[in-house]
Amino acid sequence: MELTILGCYSATPRTFNNPTAQVLEIKNHLFLIDCGEGTQVQLRRRKIKFSRIKHIFISHLHGDHFFGLVGLISTFGLLDRKNELHIHGPKGIKEIITLQLKLSNSWTGYPLYFHELDQKIPQLILEDETVTVETIPLKHRVYANGFYFKEKEGDRKLLINEVQQYEIDVAYYRSIKKGKDAVLEDGTTIPNHKLTEPAEPTKSYAFCSDTVYLPEIAEQIKGVSTLYHESTFLEQHKHLCDKTKHSTAKQAALIAKAANAKQLVLGHYSTRYGNIEVFKEEAQTVFDNVILAEDGKVITIN
Amino acid sequence: MELTILGCYSATPRTFNNPTAQVLEIKNHLFLIDCGEGTQVQLRRRKIKFSRIKHIFISHLHGDHFFGLVGLISTFGLLDRKNELHIHGPKGIKEIITLQLKLSNSWTGYPLYFHELDQKIPQLILEDETVTVETIPLKHRVYANGFYFKEKEGDRKLLINEVQQYEIDVAYYRSIKKGKDAVLEDGTTIPNHKLTEPAEPTKSYAFCSDTVYLPEIAEQIKGVSTLYHESTFLEQHKHLCDKTKHSTAKQAALIAKAANAKQLVLGHYSTRYGNIEVFKEEAQTVFDNVILAEDGKVITIN
Repeated sequence: MELTILGCYSATPRTFNNPTAQVLEIKNHLFLIDCGEGTQVQLRRRKIKFSRIKHIFISHLHGDHFFGLVGLISTFGLLDRKNELHIHGPKGIKEIITLQLKLSNSWTGYPLYFHELDQKIPQLILEDETVTVETIPLKHRVYANGFYFKEKEGDRKLLINEVQQYEIDVAYYRSIKKGKDAVLEDGTTIPNHKLTEPAEPTKSYAFCSDTVYLPEIAEQIKGVSTLYHESTFLEQHKHLCDKTKHSTAKQAALIAKAANAKQLVLGHYSTRYGNIEVFKEEAQTVFDNVILAEDGKVITIN
Repeated sequence: MELTILGCYSATPRTFNNPTAQVLEIKNHLFLIDCGEGTQVQLRRRKIKFSRIKHIFISHLHGDHFFGLVGLISTFGLLDRKNELHIHGPKGIKEIITLQLKLSNSWTGYPLYFHELDQKIPQLILEDETVTVETIPLKHRVYANGFYFKEKEGDRKLLINEVQQYEIDVAYYRSIKKGKDAVLEDGTTIPNHKLTEPAEPTKSYAFCSDTVYLPEIAEQIKGVSTLYHESTFLEQHKHLCDKTKHSTAKQAALIAKAANAKQLVLGHYSTRYGNIEVFKEEAQTVFDNVILAEDGKVITIN
């Protein structure tokens, strides 16, 4: 499970600072989370294969989180994409994109699905055999969601020596890995726990941007492997958080601590601070394992 | 009069190729022409002062010519712009921009005016004391216009020795420069041509992208100082021009020749050709003074 930061600054794209966009690689999925202006160029720069992205999650309709979306959708079309694309984002996103495609008379040649969000409680928005994705309701100047990505628990691991000792046929391995007991030819039942050990612990990732400090987030994401939480300001500018509905680095760390997260990634920095190390220093007064998001950084989620 | 190329490639932004956007400096105006994704970053990179841009001209509603507009408009707002901004572009552009501002609940704090275009004949769309701007109707897959920027003729130049010889009061200089004759105290009339010489020749710039080969363009822009004309393909791929409604380098040169232009700037290159020199070579079989647009290039218009 790997997170690639394409952009992690707030407000406006600049020569060396890109607005929010990140790619999460999880169980063979490549999820794009937010899509600020210039995201398609950042994807190219990081050599991320466009066709592997099948789901895009947009947190909210502020420009620094979605102005790159229509360009990316168009580029997929120009590159003759065939496989489907799903956009998960706030109500209104479909109208924005389709109006632009309509006026440019350039419809996509691939199936494009919009899944519009308008609920204020956590919702399961994607589920397949290996992962689930839930919304994390946030509180910002406009309707906003974070996203909580979780690997599903995998199969239990066969204790191969035990299985062979009982001379169990390989045809039963799959059901044993799923947790079933084994029944031998003589009718004896061997309980599953004698034949397997627990599956690898699952990993999870929570993306929370943009939002005011919202303690209930911690309840929803208890035990998360990695939390990305916006830290637009430092405590010394807390009044700006109140005004603009953002969080400080310390508040991000409080969420990580309360959620018992393994790792906290900070981002969405205001460019008023010359040096982003100050965000880490502030967060570490509360929570130790802090990583600073930086454009182009790849973060492993364990 | 100076033209700064911010981007000059067709289709999609890439790591080192930006889509169409250029800045024309003319008589103290700074006009932005087209605004592909990433234009605001290119403006920063070229250190062009945002507040000096008061008029933006959008040729047509394909993404590589306007996907950067909403971001630029938003950034102007975030930077607390106060002076007015005028957008000249195809009908529909107002709806696209205002829908996005509405859904992001972030209106501009400065006056934003849209001047929507839907005519298919040349129109005077801007005029002040020093310049005029006309549309150049183009033919593309969607409604499109080029733009023809002309300096107005300035004042005639005083022949200061002559004026002093007749002891003409400085109070009359202004009217003499405007072409009036001078009347001396004794009633004698001195004809203007004895006191002045003609004004500096005026300069002009025509921007034509995207379009099929359209000979009537040459009629409208006769004697233009500098013509920018798209050359998406070479003659060997003329069939693609027919299909996609673009021009070849040779066709761009034919327009320049027929218009008796002083200089031709080529751009809007397809990225299928590894080397853009091939466009220049092809155009020069028809017209000699050819410049290749390149991202970041500054071109003087004489």
